[in-house]
Amino acid sequence: MVVEELLTRIKFDESGLVPVVAQDVSDNTVLMVAYADADAIRKTWAKKLAHYFSRSRNRLWLKGETSGNLQEIVDIFYDCDHDTLLYRVRPRGPACHTGERTCFYRKVV
Amino acid sequence: MVVEELLTRIKFDESGLVPVVAQDVSDNTVLMVAYADADAIRKTWAKKLAHYFSRSRNRLWLKGETSGNLQEIVDIFYDCDHDTLLYRVRPRGPACHTGERTCFYRKVV
Repeated sequence: MVVEELLTRIKFDESGLVPVVAQDVSDNTVLMVAYADADAIRKTWAKKLAHYFSRSRNRLWLKGETSGNLQEIVDIFYDCDHDTLLYRVRPRGPACHTGERTCFYRKVV
Repeated sequence: MVVEELLTRIKFDESGLVPVVAQDVSDNTVLMVAYADADAIRKTWAKKLAHYFSRSRNRLWLKGETSGNLQEIVDIFYDCDHDTLLYRVRPRGPACHTGERTCFYRKVV
């Protein structure tokens, strides 16, 4: 499948975004959820590095562009509804801006 | 943490929803991504079964209510931005309406 074919299958929301779950291939830890637009998906595919669309900065976001904590893409999956992506990655550092390995470090107890 | 405290921390979107990643505790497989509103989170907490808000049916959705494929809640995490939940579950059957174990069964190659 070429990336343009994937893009025709994906149902983007009204903002042109699709949620993406990033998962560490080493042990399947869920690292973060972010959003991608078509351009971010194209860049992710071409570079084999996770790209997202930063909603706060309103621009393309190469994960790790400043921190160096890049996420190397191993596999990309999409779901049955075609409205969510799963990036399976090999992270080069923590996913979270707090320095935690995963953004999901707060447990509800 | 009582559930009402969690609800004050969560940043719901303009539709009053928050994305939820459901993950199988047995091997950390990502099963699905769905959405929850405050009521779904309260029900999830009270019953220890995954509840979502069905955007297509516009109502509370107990996962497995018709199929029997309930998802027993083991842990709930929320992310650093307080805008995504992670339900760690023990599924009683496939997550996907297609019968696949996970909704992410289509790999982009």
